[in-house]
Amino acid sequence: MMNKERLDRVVEQMKEHELSQIIVGDDAAFLWLIGQIVNPMERCGALLIKDDGDVHAFMNNLFCIDPIEGVTMHYYADGENPYKLIADELKPGKVGFDKNWPSKHTISVLMERDDITPVLGSDPIDACKACKDEAEREALRHAARINDMAVEFGINHINPELDEKQLSDMIEEFFESKGAVQDIQLQYVCYGKNAAEPHHGAVAGEMLHEGDAVLFDLWAPINNYWCDMTRTVFYKSCSEEHRKVYEIVKKAQQAAIDFVKPGVRMCDIDAAARNVIEEAGYGEYFLTRTGHGAGMTVHEPPEASPSCDMIAKPGMCFSIEPGIYLKEDVGVRIEDLVIVTEDGCEVLTKYPKDLQIVG
Amino acid sequence: MMNKERLDRVVEQMKEHELSQIIVGDDAAFLWLIGQIVNPMERCGALLIKDDGDVHAFMNNLFCIDPIEGVTMHYYADGENPYKLIADELKPGKVGFDKNWPSKHTISVLMERDDITPVLGSDPIDACKACKDEAEREALRHAARINDMAVEFGINHINPELDEKQLSDMIEEFFESKGAVQDIQLQYVCYGKNAAEPHHGAVAGEMLHEGDAVLFDLWAPINNYWCDMTRTVFYKSCSEEHRKVYEIVKKAQQAAIDFVKPGVRMCDIDAAARNVIEEAGYGEYFLTRTGHGAGMTVHEPPEASPSCDMIAKPGMCFSIEPGIYLKEDVGVRIEDLVIVTEDGCEVLTKYPKDLQIVG
Repeated sequence: MMNKERLDRVVEQMKEHELSQIIVGDDAAFLWLIGQIVNPMERCGALLIKDDGDVHAFMNNLFCIDPIEGVTMHYYADGENPYKLIADELKPGKVGFDKNWPSKHTISVLMERDDITPVLGSDPIDACKACKDEAEREALRHAARINDMAVEFGINHINPELDEKQLSDMIEEFFESKGAVQDIQLQYVCYGKNAAEPHHGAVAGEMLHEGDAVLFDLWAPINNYWCDMTRTVFYKSCSEEHRKVYEIVKKAQQAAIDFVKPGVRMCDIDAAARNVIEEAGYGEYFLTRTGHGAGMTVHEPPEASPSCDMIAKPGMCFSIEPGIYLKEDVGVRIEDLVIVTEDGCEVLTKYPKDLQIVG
Repeated sequence: MMNKERLDRVVEQMKEHELSQIIVGDDAAFLWLIGQIVNPMERCGALLIKDDGDVHAFMNNLFCIDPIEGVTMHYYADGENPYKLIADELKPGKVGFDKNWPSKHTISVLMERDDITPVLGSDPIDACKACKDEAEREALRHAARINDMAVEFGINHINPELDEKQLSDMIEEFFESKGAVQDIQLQYVCYGKNAAEPHHGAVAGEMLHEGDAVLFDLWAPINNYWCDMTRTVFYKSCSEEHRKVYEIVKKAQQAAIDFVKPGVRMCDIDAAARNVIEEAGYGEYFLTRTGHGAGMTVHEPPEASPSCDMIAKPGMCFSIEPGIYLKEDVGVRIEDLVIVTEDGCEVLTKYPKDLQIVG
C-alpha cells in the first residue's frame, strides 16, 4: 500500500527541487514508500512519481507484486521491453533518475526518448527519508540496544585463540540470535595494525598480540533498520602514544556530538571533530568523513563530511565516527549513531567509551 | 596487475561493438581484469578503457588501491569531484557506461560534458567474460563438486522438525565449511506450495508436510566462481500429477542440454525446453527463462531466454533450469550449470535427477 503521508512529503520536496518527475528504483525506497521490498535482481522494477501525485509502477510479472492501491500498475514479462512502458509515461524535459538504479536501466530509458534530460533524482526521497518519524526512531533505538549488546559480546569474547574472522562470525551469530536476519554484512573485527585501514573487515588467520588495538565496527539491520557502532579497546596493554591517540579521538567524537543541533550544517559537524584532531597534530591521519546517515540503509544521506552543506533537522539519524589511522601501527575509531532532536541530539548507542584494556 | 590478454580481447570486442571508450564500474569486472576486488561502496571507482588500449583508473584514496601496472591512476579524496577527472579523459561522442554502475555516477559524468552520448557499454566485457578460459572452467567444476555435495547434504537432512530457514542455514554452514566464504546468498529451501513461487527463498516457521515437494536451489561463490543448481524431491509421497509434472520438467531440461552446442542461439536453447513443457500442456506454468550465465557473478550473460539471440560459443557457462509452477500447489525446477564444449556441452553438476521420494 502506498504510504500517502510519505508520498505527499516526497511530492512537496519534488517541487522544492524543481523536479516534475522522478524514477525510483531502490529497494529501501520501495519499502519506505509502499511497505514492501521489491528486489527484481537484474531486471527492471521502478516507480514513476509525478509532481501532481500520480504514481506508476513498472514490474516484472515474475515477482508477483500485487496491485498497489493508488498506483497505476504496468506489468511486463521477460522478453518484453519495460523501458518503452516507462518512456511512454514521461513528459518531455528533465527526468530525475534514482541514484542507485543500475545505469543499464537509465540508459535504456534514455534511448527510448530524445526529448528528455537525465538529472539526479533521489534528493526528494532522500530528504524525506532522512527525517525519521517516531516509529522509525523507535526502530533505530531498538536496533541500537542490540548493537550495544553485540559490542559487549565481542569485547567479552576477545581471546588470543580466535582470529579476526572467527570472532567476527561469533558476533554475526549473536546478531542473528537477536533478530538480524536480512542482509547482514561482515562484522569488522580488526586487530593491531589492521585497524589502521578504515575499511579492513575481518580476515581468517589474523591473530591477536599484546598491545594490539581491537576495533569492532558492528552493523546489522534489525526489523529493516540498521544499527552501526564502533568501539576500540586494547589487548593486555596500551602504549602511551596509543593512549594519547585514543583520547584525542574520544574528545573529537564528543565535540561533534555536542555540536549537533537543528540548523547546523553537516560540514560543520564534520569540522567540529576534525578541528580537535587537527589541533592535536593528527589531521593527516583522519582519513574519512565524520559520519554517514543511517536508517533503512546503512549508508544514506545526510553525511557529515567537508563537502556536505545539508542542514541538520530534527529526526535525522547519522553516525559520528572520527578516527586516527596510523599505518602499520594502530587505528582508533569511535562511532555512535545519533538522532537530531529539537535542541541537540540523542545518542542511540550507549556502550561506554572510556579507554578499556582487556585480557 | 592488468591482465593484458584479457584487456586485448576487450579492446577487440570494443571495436566489434563500435565503442571507442567504455567505463567499467563493476566489482566482478575489476576482479576479472585487474585481479583484485575494488568495492568503493557508495563512492565512485572506475576504469576507463579506450580502443587504443589506454586504460585509466579513478579511485578514492580511502580504499588504498595500489597503482596498477600499465594503468594511469587518478586518485581523489572525499570532497573532491571524481566525475570531473573522468570527464577530462573522455573523447567527444559515444561513451559506453557499465550497465551495473549506479546511475548517480553515470549522470554525474554526463553533467560534466555536453558533447558525450551515453550508450550501454558492458557488451565488450560481457562477451569476453562469458567465454571461460581453462583456469576458469576448472574453478567452475570445483564449485560444482561442492554444489553436488551441498544438495546431497540438504536432501539427507530433510526432517519435519526443521523449518525452511533452519534447513537453509544448515546448508549455508555446510557451504562455508567447504570454502564459500564471500558473499554467500540465502539458500533456497522451499516446501510444498512455496516451491510454486520461482523466487521464494526460505522462511522461518514454514514446515514440511507429507506429499510436499522440497525444492533446493543452492548457490554460492567458491574462490570467486559461483555454483548454482536446483533439485526437487518429494517428502514421503508424491501424487500422480506431481510425478507427471516432475517427469515433464526433467524431459524439458534434458532436451535443452541436448540442444546446446556452439553456433546455436540462446533463445533456441530456451525454446528446446519450452517446447517440451508447452507440448505437455503446461506452457503457461513455465514462468521463467530457461537459464542465466554464471561465473564470477551468479547472474551474467548469456541468458537462455526467448529474447536473447546471442550465439553459444565454446567456454560459455550458463544454467539450464526449466520449471513448472502450479500456484498454491507445487513447483518443480531442475537446474544444472553447463559449459559449451567444441561439439556439445559439459554438465558441471552431477547429482542424479531421477524422481526421489525421501523420509
